[in-house]
Amino acid sequence: MTTATERGSERRANRRQARKRTPIESLPWRVLKNPNPPVQFLREDQVQLLHESSMHIVENIGIDFLDADTLDIWSAAGAKVDKKAQHVWIDRHLLMELVRKAPAQFTLRARDPGKNVTVGGNNTVFVSTSGTPFVSDYDNGRRPGTLADVQNLVRLIHQCPPINVVESQVTEPQDIPVMHRHLERGLAIFTLSDKPVAQAAHGNVVCEDCLNMAAIVFGGREEIKKQPVFAAIINANSPLRYDTNMAQGLVSYSRGGQPLVVTPFILAGAMSPITMAAAVAQQNAEALAGIALTQICNPGVPVIYGGFTTNIDLATGSPAFGTPEGAWAFFAGAQLARFYGLPYRGSGGLNTSKVVDAQAAYESQMCLWPTVLSHTNWVQHAAGWLESGLVCSFEKFIVDVECVAMMQQLYEPVEISPETLALDMIKEIGPGGHHFGTSHTLARYQTEFYRTAVADRLAIGQWTDNGKLDAGQRAHGIWKELLASYEPPPIDVAINEELTDYVARRRRELPVSFV
Amino acid sequence: MTTATERGSERRANRRQARKRTPIESLPWRVLKNPNPPVQFLREDQVQLLHESSMHIVENIGIDFLDADTLDIWSAAGAKVDKKAQHVWIDRHLLMELVRKAPAQFTLRARDPGKNVTVGGNNTVFVSTSGTPFVSDYDNGRRPGTLADVQNLVRLIHQCPPINVVESQVTEPQDIPVMHRHLERGLAIFTLSDKPVAQAAHGNVVCEDCLNMAAIVFGGREEIKKQPVFAAIINANSPLRYDTNMAQGLVSYSRGGQPLVVTPFILAGAMSPITMAAAVAQQNAEALAGIALTQICNPGVPVIYGGFTTNIDLATGSPAFGTPEGAWAFFAGAQLARFYGLPYRGSGGLNTSKVVDAQAAYESQMCLWPTVLSHTNWVQHAAGWLESGLVCSFEKFIVDVECVAMMQQLYEPVEISPETLALDMIKEIGPGGHHFGTSHTLARYQTEFYRTAVADRLAIGQWTDNGKLDAGQRAHGIWKELLASYEPPPIDVAINEELTDYVARRRRELPVSFV
Repeated sequence: MTTATERGSERRANRRQARKRTPIESLPWRVLKNPNPPVQFLREDQVQLLHESSMHIVENIGIDFLDADTLDIWSAAGAKVDKKAQHVWIDRHLLMELVRKAPAQFTLRARDPGKNVTVGGNNTVFVSTSGTPFVSDYDNGRRPGTLADVQNLVRLIHQCPPINVVESQVTEPQDIPVMHRHLERGLAIFTLSDKPVAQAAHGNVVCEDCLNMAAIVFGGREEIKKQPVFAAIINANSPLRYDTNMAQGLVSYSRGGQPLVVTPFILAGAMSPITMAAAVAQQNAEALAGIALTQICNPGVPVIYGGFTTNIDLATGSPAFGTPEGAWAFFAGAQLARFYGLPYRGSGGLNTSKVVDAQAAYESQMCLWPTVLSHTNWVQHAAGWLESGLVCSFEKFIVDVECVAMMQQLYEPVEISPETLALDMIKEIGPGGHHFGTSHTLARYQTEFYRTAVADRLAIGQWTDNGKLDAGQRAHGIWKELLASYEPPPIDVAINEELTDYVARRRRELPVSFV
Repeated sequence: MTTATERGSERRANRRQARKRTPIESLPWRVLKNPNPPVQFLREDQVQLLHESSMHIVENIGIDFLDADTLDIWSAAGAKVDKKAQHVWIDRHLLMELVRKAPAQFTLRARDPGKNVTVGGNNTVFVSTSGTPFVSDYDNGRRPGTLADVQNLVRLIHQCPPINVVESQVTEPQDIPVMHRHLERGLAIFTLSDKPVAQAAHGNVVCEDCLNMAAIVFGGREEIKKQPVFAAIINANSPLRYDTNMAQGLVSYSRGGQPLVVTPFILAGAMSPITMAAAVAQQNAEALAGIALTQICNPGVPVIYGGFTTNIDLATGSPAFGTPEGAWAFFAGAQLARFYGLPYRGSGGLNTSKVVDAQAAYESQMCLWPTVLSHTNWVQHAAGWLESGLVCSFEKFIVDVECVAMMQQLYEPVEISPETLALDMIKEIGPGGHHFGTSHTLARYQTEFYRTAVADRLAIGQWTDNGKLDAGQRAHGIWKELLASYEPPPIDVAINEELTDYVARRRRELPVSFV
């Protein structure tokens, strides 16, 4: 005998089977593993020199932490603290002793255990863009992000296998009061997808709610402390400062057992000296200080070393993303993270373009390739980023998903065996023939290669007949088709109810505005 | 006392100084050197297995050479030849003995000796696209290539420092009789630029003219035999065949001392079995057979191992370029070339897009990155390629030049020294400050980073005020500005005259049509 719920989920499964899946949904879910040695741009003596410079910075120049409790934590741990100046100097031995407590890798649980991801080693996990105030799409143009956009983007992330992690801050839901946003975002990521998630780390109140919501989904606060269930970005407000929200977020989540992605935000020439050596030395000092703090709060808690260093534009002073200098800094950061035995975070799709054009694509590739080559473990902004991170574009999201999928395919092992060398077929067809119709070809015709989702390989006549669409226009059709056929993954009824109740209660409790 | 000629060239130099140079012209001329170990996707036992398979193919399956003289050359060298079937079987010891005679690197002379390039080792030399029947630009759309297009593209290559080599076949001048094209192209590359050149290798007559024209420029046939002055592509007509034109071209240029780029043209699933292992094994057999032939003709003549293997599209059977499988084949090919101690040729900007859009860019990057990572020495099609190689796009050319320039910049050494670590500046500015106006920044503000030529980093307001141009539209403005300000490099008057006379005479001598 089957229950009503079981029959319902069976019907849904049948419907999913029945409808034609888009090529993008048919892509395999997998975590990229790069079996090759990491590409390294620094010599060992250069790593050492950068390390020494960072040690000089934390010991002699010091770092601001704009939060009284955090200053007390540093003081208790043995650092030199000026509470009035909110400034901390950290002895290098203390710093390195703390950094060494962090694990080299960890597994992030997902609501669907089949989608758990291991962060570390030669695994590369792809995460969507985050923190964009605006969204854009070809129907409605560029506009402030809304909760509906967050929900739709979470649905798309869920539907696109190449993206491993759901980012709750994929855009800022500006139609929701600031202090309620994390509640709505939390509800979206846990109910609309079953992939691992990333959360915001903005001050004590937000963090406490996010921990509580995750605890509802994953079996309680003690349970999620044992094995982490979300990651969160901490940005240093470079140069040399962690602000109140970030310091509190770092302490809250570390204590709650969740991995932080400690990432200085440096544009060389603005937030650091203009030379890339200085930018990376400063990044390293700031990142290590934040990482050490996580280990005071909760020794052994997973933490990711984040690199986001790039340069300003020489002509305008604007941020420059997808640059050769930024690529170099990614590689250098990965090498430093490895030097300290920490997982590394980079960025996959940064660019400064205002539209989904060739520039958006080639600048993004200037980020994507370095992440994979350097064994970057956590690739933020791998899908959707446009206009220096001001915009999450629905069309760029789809284009980026294809680029990530192609990279995942490149790193799948290629079989070299008598079967695939097919010398008998080469002999049988001989000179001047063709292999289109052979049994060897036909047996593999559906599956042998990456099947493109966005790229159009038709001849110009057929492409013209189809309306002369460029990649952005085709991507537009794809995300609309995906959303039209979206179905939420199953969720335990009791969990869903508890989550909804929690959010309803906190909506009433929290002020609608917040200074 | 200065002569009239000297004063004229001084005036020209002053004019060049006076006019504002575009960012693209201001980029440095350089040859990319990758100091990192090459990225390798094959294990040693896999290299060995591919090698063994290729040996099996040349020994037991054999290869067509559709030219009687070439068959005689093979026969005299000791290969088993069936003259009627125009088929050759080559013993592996004979083959490898010949392949080993080829040098690991060589220097290609340019008309301007400062632009000579060394091909081999960890040098990567970038060459424009070649062999496209059509051109396109935003003024005149897609159309058959003409001599004027060849001339304009040669001018642009000359003006864009990142492109190292001028390709005479950058497009097919379809307004010129087939048998006169090489003459006009030869005149264009030697008079409109002073960079190293690549030539066509189509049968004995064309090759003889190309050798004679190069001899006029570089001091005679004996002189160019001592040090090569142009390279030329030889394509195997895969599977397992060299046609008459290619066989004759290979023999002529080898004897004339010029390096050939021996490149099987394989789309897995059409010209080889569908499995990439088979495609690369077959590529290797075909390439080595062609390379061995160059060494019979002229032992020690430089030759480049060319890889161009990619796959067909599963949905349409069309060629697929810029694919993960094609990238894997590039890496595998480079590793095989290194195994044999030969310079390697890959492709930089292959794509199947019909327009200069995100697809054109991300597929191109799926080629460009592997070339640099694998120590590819000769990167064909690095600028201009569109629509599976049917079109050379003026706008794509400019976009590609920026991508190549960014890659060259990434591989420039980054100085890590007390001066660039700038710890005193980090201390002076301290937490929360900014480095915009420091003496350290101002001293480096003009030169520290790659200065973008195509990418627009302006804020959305300024970008809107400038007309909302995408990368292709900006590229359009750039090439028009370049051509408007083009000035030919100086050429010796006597050489210019001899070259012009030679072409005039051969125009009269050669038939206007040719079967």
